[in-house]
Amino acid sequence: MFQTFDSAGDPSVGKPRVTLLRRWLADNGLDGFLVPRADEHQGEYVADRSARLKWLTGFSGSAGVALVQRDRAFMFVDGRYTLQVRHEVDLDIFAIESLVDNPPASWIKDNLGKGARLGFDPWLHTIAEVKALKTSAEQSGATLVPLDRNPIDIIWKDQPAPPAAPVEIHPIGFAGELAKDKLARLAAAIGKEGATQAVLTDPSSIAWAFNIRGGDVPHTPLALGFAILAADGKHQLFMDQLMDQRKFSRTVAAYLTQLADLHEPGEFEAAVVALAEGGAKIALDPVLAAEKLRMLVEDNGGTFVSAADPARIPRATKNQAEIAGSRAAHRRDGAAVAKLLCWLERQKPGTLDEITVVTKLEEVRRQTGEETQMPLRDVSFDTISGAGPNGAIMHYRVSRATNRKLTKGELFLLDSGAQYQDGTTDITRTVPIGQPTEEMRERFTLVLKGMIGISTLRFPAGTRGSEIDAVARMALWKHGCDFAHGTGHGVGSYLAVHEGPQRIARTGTEKLLAGMMLSNEPGYYKEGSYGIRIENLILVTSADPVEGGDIAMHGFETLTLAPIDIRLIRTDLLTREELHWLDTYHAWVLAEIGPMLDGETLAWLEKATAPLPHDAKI
Amino acid sequence: MFQTFDSAGDPSVGKPRVTLLRRWLADNGLDGFLVPRADEHQGEYVADRSARLKWLTGFSGSAGVALVQRDRAFMFVDGRYTLQVRHEVDLDIFAIESLVDNPPASWIKDNLGKGARLGFDPWLHTIAEVKALKTSAEQSGATLVPLDRNPIDIIWKDQPAPPAAPVEIHPIGFAGELAKDKLARLAAAIGKEGATQAVLTDPSSIAWAFNIRGGDVPHTPLALGFAILAADGKHQLFMDQLMDQRKFSRTVAAYLTQLADLHEPGEFEAAVVALAEGGAKIALDPVLAAEKLRMLVEDNGGTFVSAADPARIPRATKNQAEIAGSRAAHRRDGAAVAKLLCWLERQKPGTLDEITVVTKLEEVRRQTGEETQMPLRDVSFDTISGAGPNGAIMHYRVSRATNRKLTKGELFLLDSGAQYQDGTTDITRTVPIGQPTEEMRERFTLVLKGMIGISTLRFPAGTRGSEIDAVARMALWKHGCDFAHGTGHGVGSYLAVHEGPQRIARTGTEKLLAGMMLSNEPGYYKEGSYGIRIENLILVTSADPVEGGDIAMHGFETLTLAPIDIRLIRTDLLTREELHWLDTYHAWVLAEIGPMLDGETLAWLEKATAPLPHDAKI
Repeated sequence: MFQTFDSAGDPSVGKPRVTLLRRWLADNGLDGFLVPRADEHQGEYVADRSARLKWLTGFSGSAGVALVQRDRAFMFVDGRYTLQVRHEVDLDIFAIESLVDNPPASWIKDNLGKGARLGFDPWLHTIAEVKALKTSAEQSGATLVPLDRNPIDIIWKDQPAPPAAPVEIHPIGFAGELAKDKLARLAAAIGKEGATQAVLTDPSSIAWAFNIRGGDVPHTPLALGFAILAADGKHQLFMDQLMDQRKFSRTVAAYLTQLADLHEPGEFEAAVVALAEGGAKIALDPVLAAEKLRMLVEDNGGTFVSAADPARIPRATKNQAEIAGSRAAHRRDGAAVAKLLCWLERQKPGTLDEITVVTKLEEVRRQTGEETQMPLRDVSFDTISGAGPNGAIMHYRVSRATNRKLTKGELFLLDSGAQYQDGTTDITRTVPIGQPTEEMRERFTLVLKGMIGISTLRFPAGTRGSEIDAVARMALWKHGCDFAHGTGHGVGSYLAVHEGPQRIARTGTEKLLAGMMLSNEPGYYKEGSYGIRIENLILVTSADPVEGGDIAMHGFETLTLAPIDIRLIRTDLLTREELHWLDTYHAWVLAEIGPMLDGETLAWLEKATAPLPHDAKI
Repeated sequence: MFQTFDSAGDPSVGKPRVTLLRRWLADNGLDGFLVPRADEHQGEYVADRSARLKWLTGFSGSAGVALVQRDRAFMFVDGRYTLQVRHEVDLDIFAIESLVDNPPASWIKDNLGKGARLGFDPWLHTIAEVKALKTSAEQSGATLVPLDRNPIDIIWKDQPAPPAAPVEIHPIGFAGELAKDKLARLAAAIGKEGATQAVLTDPSSIAWAFNIRGGDVPHTPLALGFAILAADGKHQLFMDQLMDQRKFSRTVAAYLTQLADLHEPGEFEAAVVALAEGGAKIALDPVLAAEKLRMLVEDNGGTFVSAADPARIPRATKNQAEIAGSRAAHRRDGAAVAKLLCWLERQKPGTLDEITVVTKLEEVRRQTGEETQMPLRDVSFDTISGAGPNGAIMHYRVSRATNRKLTKGELFLLDSGAQYQDGTTDITRTVPIGQPTEEMRERFTLVLKGMIGISTLRFPAGTRGSEIDAVARMALWKHGCDFAHGTGHGVGSYLAVHEGPQRIARTGTEKLLAGMMLSNEPGYYKEGSYGIRIENLILVTSADPVEGGDIAMHGFETLTLAPIDIRLIRTDLLTREELHWLDTYHAWVLAEIGPMLDGETLAWLEKATAPLPHDAKI
């Protein structure tokens, strides 16, 4: 299994470890220390050795910061984790604060005393973050002290070793562009920004630029490291265990040597300093790069050029090989999901629980991967398997403690994804167990209308995700409902399932460009009762002329292939255009994945994708 | 008539006047001078004495900047004026530049030579503008020189006197809140920003805060002036001709004296300096206030607090009296528009031209105003009366030179508004002259779908105009069409017909709050052929519970009352919900304005508002 069902948090660890940390703070003349969840790469997952927040506090969530003072300590978490944190940390030690309403940068202003010295590890906070923290500290008369070494690493005696998963070359058939060509494009972009070098701190960018994949963090095929790309083409790559053939085979090492000078990570700081001393103009992404890098550049005579990671837009706009790979991955994944849904429908109510379904889903994905000779490499995130009220918890992770039976009259929400070498998938389907209520069917149909609204949208060049987010919500809004998450996140190509910068959300300021992959996942959540979400991945298509129209328009091509449960659809609430989309989608699902299925499953799929009665009343 | 039909521009004025300006520049050691269209209040209209750009160049548009150098001169205009400017300025003298793609702040960087000294009048540029100009000048090695006196005012021998239109008290029945209560609210807001004073530079804010109206600029009932509001309530008001009883009657002067210390504008600078010297913290709106004010504050020991004009949100969120006034104004205005539309339909094709219609419209508005004892005070802007291809010019202003006959087979677009003491209106209707083509009917229906989409939208608290702009475009986008303007602008209450900060547009970053008035005016323009626009004013209603829903939702109440031409509607393209809205709207129009009409006009209205056949196919 790529997923475990242990209860992740442990409130007992906090007391002794916070005591150790406080002793260290006292010995070193500090009044407090910030412990973020992030590592130096600011990704969604961190390696075990970097799980400092979890080690110190017991908290297992994917976002949060602890602030430990000599006499008080605080945990800052967002709305997703306000319940969970109370089970995972010792509330005698930690007071809980809101990461959104009163994040450290505002908390410090009002609470850090005059003259206080607050330590932080400048490798773990971005340039933008530290700027805000500094302003806030100054307003309170306190000082932020960047530390040379993270005290957690000093007091954590059995801190795991850095990960050393094998690095592999991502074949050109899937990548679609040679690494040397990508690197040449990036070098040109760096020069255009007026920089001599750019530091890539995001392992997704490195994986994309060098056409490599690794396994250093869960569920995302990344090799952790840094790269210094140069406008003049003299690139340097810094990765752990370069000499260890278990991580870097001779082939991979030889391949990478063609593209860049290879160094151990211990040489990274010195390399930045050397460039800075030579007067380099070094581009850093202020919302991704560590404050430490800015310090190394500016303290050593270099110029800090504030510029977005040059790889993010090229990486986000997938090429034809990546798109073809994704389509193939979605056929395979759709067939697996269809097998699961068919199986699910045939089980007796009361015999299944959330964990059984997750286990079965991974099994059919593995099996389908083997049959199609493109094995399942990993799940792209821990499956969200939510029965009844658990479905209303937006980032629910099932554990043996929370595991719930699938019960008649309830809804079951299943949000999962896979990592195949040709693509990353992410799909949510919601199904009724037994007979759904009329309210469930109405809400499901409103969510579906939003999802179809995005699927059928056309839009001119330059449109941003923030401008179309409402399209997924209008039908719900009319009925006094909404959902408290964005409509869609970017998705990588055998990379992170949550990939920036593209997104469909209030905060989606990036233009939607042809080739970007996104999720389309409106939902509805009734706390304590049920959750609904329907999620397809979509691809931004290039601006094509519209018959009879004036200007070419972008649109979305749907990638995900699996039936949407018709037992939950009130066709009388759909327009003819919406019904037409649904029938066309289902016919396409049958045509694409039907050939991969047989017997009972094929019969089930034929029924699940049959055209709906066109009794549209609106 | 409140409107003239002269050709406004005059390309012959530029040569001699630019020569005079260049001589002055040479005598004063300057290499160039910036002449913006704006005055020190940054409003849409300027008084004749402040029409410096028009005087110097001949250009009559509502936005633009001239940059006059010793040997070259440039006119920067936006897309609306690229054609017009070529008729209005001497192209031997002025090169035309894009105010959007290459505005002065970027032009300067690339073109102003090292060491060049570019003069500007710091009263006519905002703080934010000068900040950008300065950065740009520094990058080119040039210097921006703020001038003590505007050279145009020196060389313009017959510059008109400042306007002196009578100032009147805006009665509490229309204003809905006493000026002293508004001022107390503003004083509290100023204190909360950490300021001791705020300077109001926008005459709309002053008119709103003091409950006064004037007539110093066209089509907007403003009295030009400045106010210094103080957190401690010691307010000062600076206006021209305070001693002239033709402008300030004894009653008005006595009224204002209760609210603030009154001063001539000549005393304004000294008052700001005195406060600054006393260590005042003075709030200025960086996108509204003159750079000169920042200089006066900071050069004299005061602190510049950057904060939005404290009156803009209170002014934008109308109270119950203002809303009631607007509803009454819209009934009256709707009756007038109905009379016009009925009259228009009964004229023989070929007998009308654009000017005849404008003249007739003003006549019926005057007449209806007199009948209802709420006289027409002004039009709220120059009526856009566009027949055939003229309708496709978004900001068309009819002159005798461009006047076009209303011709069979063409569309006619009429965008107009009125100023009544109880409210400001703005309405666009598009009608066919004779038989419209199928394309016209299809496009009109797509525009209508967008307009209904906004009208029927519900949305949660915190939604911004930028998030819903696409709702007005989705139907057009699907057909490869769009319109190159925002969906809606804010509207004042017997104030500016274009009022900030609320708007429905890509750039509408302001939250939509209950009480805000906006236009809802999607369009479609086929260059050289026809223009379509349908515009109603709408009011943001408070968040009301939705039956069966979870959260209260804001919505829009339509204010404008006039039939939408059913000859241009393809009902087969409308959903049942859209048809239902249209029928309900028309029934309401008939109920509200029917009682103000009789005879032929009432019969016409009954037919124009009859329910449509419900043959919805989608």
